[in-house]
Amino acid sequence: MATEKPYVIGLDLGGTNSVFGIVDAEGKILELGKIKTGAYETFNEWLDASLECLKPMIEKVGGINNIKAMGAGAPNGNFYNGTIEFAPNLKWGKGLVPFAKAFSEKLGIPCYLTNDANAAALGEMKYGTARAMKDFIVITLGTGVGSGIVINGKMVYGCDGFAGELGHVIAVRGKNGRQCGCGATGCLETYCSATGVARTAREILKKSDEPSLLRKLKPEEITSLDVSIAAGKGDKIAKEIFQFTGTLLGEMLADFTKFSSPEAYIFFGGLTKAGDLLMNPIKEAYDKNCMPIFKGKAKILVSELPDADAAVLGASALAW
Amino acid sequence: MATEKPYVIGLDLGGTNSVFGIVDAEGKILELGKIKTGAYETFNEWLDASLECLKPMIEKVGGINNIKAMGAGAPNGNFYNGTIEFAPNLKWGKGLVPFAKAFSEKLGIPCYLTNDANAAALGEMKYGTARAMKDFIVITLGTGVGSGIVINGKMVYGCDGFAGELGHVIAVRGKNGRQCGCGATGCLETYCSATGVARTAREILKKSDEPSLLRKLKPEEITSLDVSIAAGKGDKIAKEIFQFTGTLLGEMLADFTKFSSPEAYIFFGGLTKAGDLLMNPIKEAYDKNCMPIFKGKAKILVSELPDADAAVLGASALAW
Repeated sequence: MATEKPYVIGLDLGGTNSVFGIVDAEGKILELGKIKTGAYETFNEWLDASLECLKPMIEKVGGINNIKAMGAGAPNGNFYNGTIEFAPNLKWGKGLVPFAKAFSEKLGIPCYLTNDANAAALGEMKYGTARAMKDFIVITLGTGVGSGIVINGKMVYGCDGFAGELGHVIAVRGKNGRQCGCGATGCLETYCSATGVARTAREILKKSDEPSLLRKLKPEEITSLDVSIAAGKGDKIAKEIFQFTGTLLGEMLADFTKFSSPEAYIFFGGLTKAGDLLMNPIKEAYDKNCMPIFKGKAKILVSELPDADAAVLGASALAW
Repeated sequence: MATEKPYVIGLDLGGTNSVFGIVDAEGKILELGKIKTGAYETFNEWLDASLECLKPMIEKVGGINNIKAMGAGAPNGNFYNGTIEFAPNLKWGKGLVPFAKAFSEKLGIPCYLTNDANAAALGEMKYGTARAMKDFIVITLGTGVGSGIVINGKMVYGCDGFAGELGHVIAVRGKNGRQCGCGATGCLETYCSATGVARTAREILKKSDEPSLLRKLKPEEITSLDVSIAAGKGDKIAKEIFQFTGTLLGEMLADFTKFSSPEAYIFFGGLTKAGDLLMNPIKEAYDKNCMPIFKGKAKILVSELPDADAAVLGASALAW
């Protein structure tokens, strides 16, 4: 008699890291492994490294026969057909990558794929802040800006599986908008991702002579974490950078509310470490740009799940 | 033995006209009546005039005992609680109007309310272009700009009943944006409604000396229909007005696709009479502003239902 296989694999595939977890039915992560996404030139090289990383993890839980399926969250991951399509933040993601098919064949178990931000939203819905919510939007502020939209308790995939690309909504129209990896200019992600914040830092430092802790660093090496740390120490320029970033995010959130009027926005990812320095300007700009009927309604929250875990858990939720 | 009541009332409440229909189960409109929305200072005056208009219609179909319920589409109509809330385009809609309750009490039958654009979307889904679609957005181009969003075959109401206010998404950011009735500046509706097109006409005529058929009219009396007629005759300025309007709409549609990736956009309302003069620039700007994964996918269509009927039928669909 066959018994139910007790584990699944969850993969959080980000622009920087690929994090694998083996997860049980209660959401406990038994094994965790990681490789650098950007260290591989082709999908096949990355796939080989992934399988190498997974091999000892799978052995530790008693072999592949104990694993039911794999769920993955990846940039431009398509839930409907299991391919990664034209992902601008992945070196090897420019074309059409047969992601789910490749893992299914190599591991011999079913593999399901979705957008990385959708996976984060699934994680919030199953284990996190959104457990009791039917209408919410998760916005991931990492290397890029992603989003997972839940309406009436269901993930929004759209007609083609690619709904929820809010990082590419145009935040700054016209010729002054920053060039984005997607080909457009002015995308939200070019301003409000970790890399966008670093870019803002370089621009603001160049424009003024105001003293700043950030001037001790080489401009091209400044990260959003450096800006967080400087702002935490009261650095005026660093605070101005978060004010600018949060205001832009809040303005866009006010527009998103006109679309689906969610109960909450849940922010997730590295940039949320800036805390109130980022959240306060978001809330101010949101309320300032909302229609009267929406003012003060939507909750603007930070995920309470640890970054990597939520994405891995969310991805694993796809696999059950 | 009680027999099923054979009819419902549908009401399309627009900024200009309030159109009542009595509709049978096959979607045939048996009686049609209309009053001017703007001719009344208070909700109670408008309500009295509405009941006056409905009375002979109801008698003609054999009295109120033949009518099961009433469905209404109105600006800022809230499906969840039956009130019209802070509707900027209604003289008597600034506060909280107990709409469904008032009709239920006066007529003695249940009354259901939704957004006027949601009603149009329900009409498209039941009788129109969207019959086979699960993901589409109806955009109404009338006195204002409204929208009804259907995802996974269900109307999107959001956490509070007010989702789908795409007419108030900010199309032009910053101080140059036009003042909107909602309090914000730069809303899509201030540019791409019938009144927005007339406003664009006045602005463009003032800025240039280019000859135009529109110069024969008093600037304050120009309507979007005048612009359509002039453009149809090849008038350069009139065509420029639609080029501007369509480009802005297409740009915003490209952003909406990043949200829910619908199978189609269906335009509805007076402005669609401009035909390809408006639709071609919409399609061009849409494709130009879409991410590669979305290019050329979504259908951009004009409703095939007659304006008033679709809204009345959609509203009536709520009542069954």
